[in-house]
Amino acid sequence: MSETSTKDFSVIGKSVPKIDARDKVTGRAKYAGDLKVPGMLIGKILRSPHAHARILNINTSKAMELPGVAAVITARDVPSTFYGISPARYDETILAIEKVLQVGDKVAAVAAVDEETAVKALALIDVEYEVLPAVLDPLRAMDEGQPQVHPQYERNISVEIHQDFGDVEKAFRESYVVRTDCFQGNRATHVPMEPHAAISKWENGKLTIWSSSQSPHYFQYHISRVFGLKMGDVRVIKAFVGGGFGGKLEPSAAEYVSAALAMKTGRPVKIVFDRKEVFFHNRGRHAQHIELTTGVTKEGKILGVHAKFIIDGGSYTSLGIASAYYAGAMLPLIYDFDHFKFDGLRVHTNLPSCAAQRGHGAPQPRFAFESQLDMIAKELGMDPIEIRKVNARQPNTTTLNDLKVNSCEFTACLDKATEISDWAGKKGKLPPGQGIGIGCGGFITGAGYPIYRTRLPHASAVIKISEQGDTATLYIGAVDIGQGSDTILAQMAAEAVGINYEDVRIVSADTETTPHDFGAYASRQTLMSGHAVKQAGDEIRRQIIELAADLLEANAADVDIDRRVVFVKGSPEKTLTFENVANEFFIRKGPLVGKGSYAPPKLGGKFKGAAVGTSPAYSFAAQISQVEVDEETGQVMVTKVWDVHDCGTVINPSLLHGQVEGALFMGMGEAMYEQVVFDDKGKPLNANLGEYRVPTALDVPEVISELVDSYEPAGPWGVKEVGEGATLPTMGSYANAIYDAIGVRLYDLPLTPEKVWRAIQDRKKLL
Amino acid sequence: MSETSTKDFSVIGKSVPKIDARDKVTGRAKYAGDLKVPGMLIGKILRSPHAHARILNINTSKAMELPGVAAVITARDVPSTFYGISPARYDETILAIEKVLQVGDKVAAVAAVDEETAVKALALIDVEYEVLPAVLDPLRAMDEGQPQVHPQYERNISVEIHQDFGDVEKAFRESYVVRTDCFQGNRATHVPMEPHAAISKWENGKLTIWSSSQSPHYFQYHISRVFGLKMGDVRVIKAFVGGGFGGKLEPSAAEYVSAALAMKTGRPVKIVFDRKEVFFHNRGRHAQHIELTTGVTKEGKILGVHAKFIIDGGSYTSLGIASAYYAGAMLPLIYDFDHFKFDGLRVHTNLPSCAAQRGHGAPQPRFAFESQLDMIAKELGMDPIEIRKVNARQPNTTTLNDLKVNSCEFTACLDKATEISDWAGKKGKLPPGQGIGIGCGGFITGAGYPIYRTRLPHASAVIKISEQGDTATLYIGAVDIGQGSDTILAQMAAEAVGINYEDVRIVSADTETTPHDFGAYASRQTLMSGHAVKQAGDEIRRQIIELAADLLEANAADVDIDRRVVFVKGSPEKTLTFENVANEFFIRKGPLVGKGSYAPPKLGGKFKGAAVGTSPAYSFAAQISQVEVDEETGQVMVTKVWDVHDCGTVINPSLLHGQVEGALFMGMGEAMYEQVVFDDKGKPLNANLGEYRVPTALDVPEVISELVDSYEPAGPWGVKEVGEGATLPTMGSYANAIYDAIGVRLYDLPLTPEKVWRAIQDRKKLL
Repeated sequence: MSETSTKDFSVIGKSVPKIDARDKVTGRAKYAGDLKVPGMLIGKILRSPHAHARILNINTSKAMELPGVAAVITARDVPSTFYGISPARYDETILAIEKVLQVGDKVAAVAAVDEETAVKALALIDVEYEVLPAVLDPLRAMDEGQPQVHPQYERNISVEIHQDFGDVEKAFRESYVVRTDCFQGNRATHVPMEPHAAISKWENGKLTIWSSSQSPHYFQYHISRVFGLKMGDVRVIKAFVGGGFGGKLEPSAAEYVSAALAMKTGRPVKIVFDRKEVFFHNRGRHAQHIELTTGVTKEGKILGVHAKFIIDGGSYTSLGIASAYYAGAMLPLIYDFDHFKFDGLRVHTNLPSCAAQRGHGAPQPRFAFESQLDMIAKELGMDPIEIRKVNARQPNTTTLNDLKVNSCEFTACLDKATEISDWAGKKGKLPPGQGIGIGCGGFITGAGYPIYRTRLPHASAVIKISEQGDTATLYIGAVDIGQGSDTILAQMAAEAVGINYEDVRIVSADTETTPHDFGAYASRQTLMSGHAVKQAGDEIRRQIIELAADLLEANAADVDIDRRVVFVKGSPEKTLTFENVANEFFIRKGPLVGKGSYAPPKLGGKFKGAAVGTSPAYSFAAQISQVEVDEETGQVMVTKVWDVHDCGTVINPSLLHGQVEGALFMGMGEAMYEQVVFDDKGKPLNANLGEYRVPTALDVPEVISELVDSYEPAGPWGVKEVGEGATLPTMGSYANAIYDAIGVRLYDLPLTPEKVWRAIQDRKKLL
Repeated sequence: MSETSTKDFSVIGKSVPKIDARDKVTGRAKYAGDLKVPGMLIGKILRSPHAHARILNINTSKAMELPGVAAVITARDVPSTFYGISPARYDETILAIEKVLQVGDKVAAVAAVDEETAVKALALIDVEYEVLPAVLDPLRAMDEGQPQVHPQYERNISVEIHQDFGDVEKAFRESYVVRTDCFQGNRATHVPMEPHAAISKWENGKLTIWSSSQSPHYFQYHISRVFGLKMGDVRVIKAFVGGGFGGKLEPSAAEYVSAALAMKTGRPVKIVFDRKEVFFHNRGRHAQHIELTTGVTKEGKILGVHAKFIIDGGSYTSLGIASAYYAGAMLPLIYDFDHFKFDGLRVHTNLPSCAAQRGHGAPQPRFAFESQLDMIAKELGMDPIEIRKVNARQPNTTTLNDLKVNSCEFTACLDKATEISDWAGKKGKLPPGQGIGIGCGGFITGAGYPIYRTRLPHASAVIKISEQGDTATLYIGAVDIGQGSDTILAQMAAEAVGINYEDVRIVSADTETTPHDFGAYASRQTLMSGHAVKQAGDEIRRQIIELAADLLEANAADVDIDRRVVFVKGSPEKTLTFENVANEFFIRKGPLVGKGSYAPPKLGGKFKGAAVGTSPAYSFAAQISQVEVDEETGQVMVTKVWDVHDCGTVINPSLLHGQVEGALFMGMGEAMYEQVVFDDKGKPLNANLGEYRVPTALDVPEVISELVDSYEPAGPWGVKEVGEGATLPTMGSYANAIYDAIGVRLYDLPLTPEKVWRAIQDRKKLL
């Protein structure tokens, strides 16, 4: 808590309405699927019915003959450039070249005058497959003799990680209690309301793509590489986006295939995934098999942790290497201990690819850790909150894996959650079948390292003031995917310049008109894009103050601006309007422009791989959940949740609490309902919104979202993360609450009624 | 001619293809009438059938009941704010309040779901008029007892000008020859291929208008004033424009009425004028009645000029005050004399309003002057070119009305025209019925004074370099109406920065995204907007050079950039690519932005009203035309024209010669064919393209367009005017060529076969 945190801001800290609220509520907002470009064709993708097969032959002639079909393409017609996230593991192509690696893999594509014709044409493409044995079980995928998904990844090992900090064996030897437990995570997926969609236009040697994207600049990088174009000849424009959650961070076949079809036909091509295709593309949560060993002193102080993971990567690498590192790297964040060992194995299977999903690799390990900590507390006879306070990270410390933590109000979060939930009055004291549990979490505020190899700033911004001085336009590459970044960046621009929120216009997420920004992932934009905005706004403010000082015959050091009033401190009669000064500036010197950019300082990362967890700042959260379990059916009702977040300065309280609730409900879905399941041929059984259950408004509990006073010195105005962190404590707090309610411990996500019921039966057998 | 004029430029001086050429030839270019906005209604305007009438009653109820009609508005439903160009003469309203002042005046309007319904609805509006006597003859309009067009302009006098420089009576007394002749100009109109069109959208308290506009920033100023909105709440975006020529410099009813209907209905409204409405709106050439008296010495030196004008302003003032001043102010530009008197009278009639048309008020007085100069030369026995050379303006001189001329290669123009046309071999020596004649002209390069009262720079520009360093985006308010300004400004940006034309993207003519610029009129953009571009480009170049000097370990003074190569002069091994340096700049310092703005220096204007002619620079031109007259029919064929223009440095030769040809053909139309004619009720008889004849490709002569070497110190890279100047010499050169061919002198524009034939008959009678 810093003195600065009490500053009375003018624009930030206020729950202004979202800048696009009217467009969204009136339906004027256009998502990529809504857009129409003159002459546009509709593209459709033919997908593999097999989990693993060799393509022997594709006959497209009948499809080509269908009236209304403009093009039918296979791998022969498109670049065979392999792509992916990390150059060492480029393993995916626009269309499958020799083999398909999962059900739903991309085999061929059609562009036609309308969707009906395109769908008919797909049915006319003859593909001859040689079906190959498939590997579907990640726990067996690395065994000798299993089918190979990719020839270059021996024994299907995508990445193998061994990290060793301190001497964990010695720590265990010195511990009073050492526990080993195994946990099983679930294969969840993002389920954005809007499926992936893109329109590609190829004109005058330039490719323009309107896309449902979390990162137009990152898309531009990949797409230009795959098609062998100059980056400047690829323009990616974000349309309104109906949710991403990590699934729209890399280009999908919607972009690649529509671009290939546009280049083939010379006409714009739109591809909108249906819901099943979203499941095929996936890139959702890895199912993690976790073996966790923790040793503590008699007083509950954690001495060492050894975590072993086998995670199911599915067909392609995508962002999965980072996911595997995050699983381990984030474990030492919120509790302070000195000895840590982490063995991770990401394996390939013939299932849809897993990658980044809200919280990235961290939520399931956090579930395991929070569950085990409660078990240890019970063994020690300690209160679960007490054991967390004993180990809670403190401000201005460095984790064993070299993550530098500045602000940290984790203890305050624990105290406040305890207080507002009436923990003391409830823990162990609720009626039978009811229980209360705690889970905690912490998360990065943007990644310390760039998402691809570049020395460009992570974020940059330009602000232009109109010649009348009445409006400011913020040009920024940051990406609003529904979370409200356009709104809070506009608030920041207003605060920095000294004008009102209503005066700010924003142009964002277009590679041609907005400067470089890595986009919406890793909870980075408020801090990183915010820094660029503040710097650009400060540059405007400085120029206005200099001129105003001249006009008011005052020292620049005495002049300030607040909500459009330019004034001399201590001389209330000496004021000018912002309009007047800005207009006078334009008259004297031409356009009034401010620029800003941000790259994180060199951050930790002295341990190989652990660099994945480096960030300028970290958030912390404690969550307490209250549940009611129907012991007859195993049905768990979460009745109330108290979330206390340490997120630094708040820019927009409404949006912030919306993020907490959204993350918490997403965590709830993963904790209680969600799992993609497959038959023994690798075909998904519930790739639809009827059978893949996400929480609805009727399922979710009452949420009390509270904050602690906090100021992050590495953030502009003291900000840090909020968008993902609240997914982390949820699973553990539910499992712990269920234990409190009915005395059964669940290790296997999601915590479905069936599993709860079976655990109750098992407990009964033991009694 | 300056040494600098021989500099070998890298990008300017090249005939690169127009930046929008592909869009235009493929039909992809969208003009305002092509645009569709979701939910859009079609607006139509009910116009007066009477030249002068009182509106007694308007009944809109039947129109309102027609299914598909969303709104019917009259003056009661819209702001009654008077508008116009000069605050002293705001005399027009969105819809007529009490009286209609011309046939086609705006009475009511409808918005409906489609055009058919809107047209039907117009027919259902009942208007009760009291028809009033109309004044149609400008020569009688100021007589006592004539109907008053506007109550506030006594005797229908719109403006009365009396300017007196030197002592013209004394000059005449000292002259060897003094001639007085009367000339009659014609009421011509612009005839842009694209009629006026606009779509207005009213959303969240903001008005957005896509318009066929010569000046979005000027439209923004007027429209916000009329509707009582903040300028920042009005956004005007230029669509592709199919010609303006002065007729789209102020908002028309297309903008005002569509905006009013959009605000009334809450839905976007499009209005596209039909051709008749373009004639009703007009704002074209004033018909000028000119009495010109000139006194010269025996040697042909002009001693004094007295010009008297009565010009027909039509119904509203519009830009007509400036037109009236230009008529006189431009006369002393190209010939040097010391005594000048100018009496001008602009009068109102119940005819469509006249205002600015290519060349503004200057072409008809120039026709008169060039004709009379030939008559005087004949009296003196001088060659017409000789008398022009005796009087030709020289560089670095000031006119009697305080116009400061820097570069001036008028004598060189005369010499070159003489030479290339074989004047000496042809003048007086061609077979009967054939003749050759000369006419000259000179024009401003932008107005020295702003078009409305503001201290904003006349032009401003921002250039942003992409993070990859591969492209530059130029943001500029300048307005491409087909003349190619986007192209030449992109060339200038490339030249200034040191990159290639193909690397430049341009965003122009949008009040929200581009900085202030007065727009496309007075031949101002190449010089004024060009200055802003050069300044912005220089700022980029300076930043690149500073960084490159650092990277190359050289002195910044030794580093230069040319077509993307950054090099150390004299060290050919020390080079970097522009991409690399610009990308490195972004990495180190964030966005690379340059800004520029331009306001002309304080220019002349020590004489009231003469300020209208002040400009940073003036062009000069000599035009020689060869004609063949059919004496049986009076038909004149122009067989060849030689135009020699002094326009300073050339940015794009193809576009420049295209401007010369376009201006010349427009001058030809006015000289030979064009005149809007009315019946005795003030109803136009030829308000269509069948009966109002403009030259077609089959009518126009072969044109030899040549330049003289010239460098204008007030222009960026030495540029000055070309877009309008070539209209000026045409009329006079034709009249003089006809005289040379058949010995008859024509004083009355246009020089139709009928007039030529009648003059031939009159001459025969005299013989």
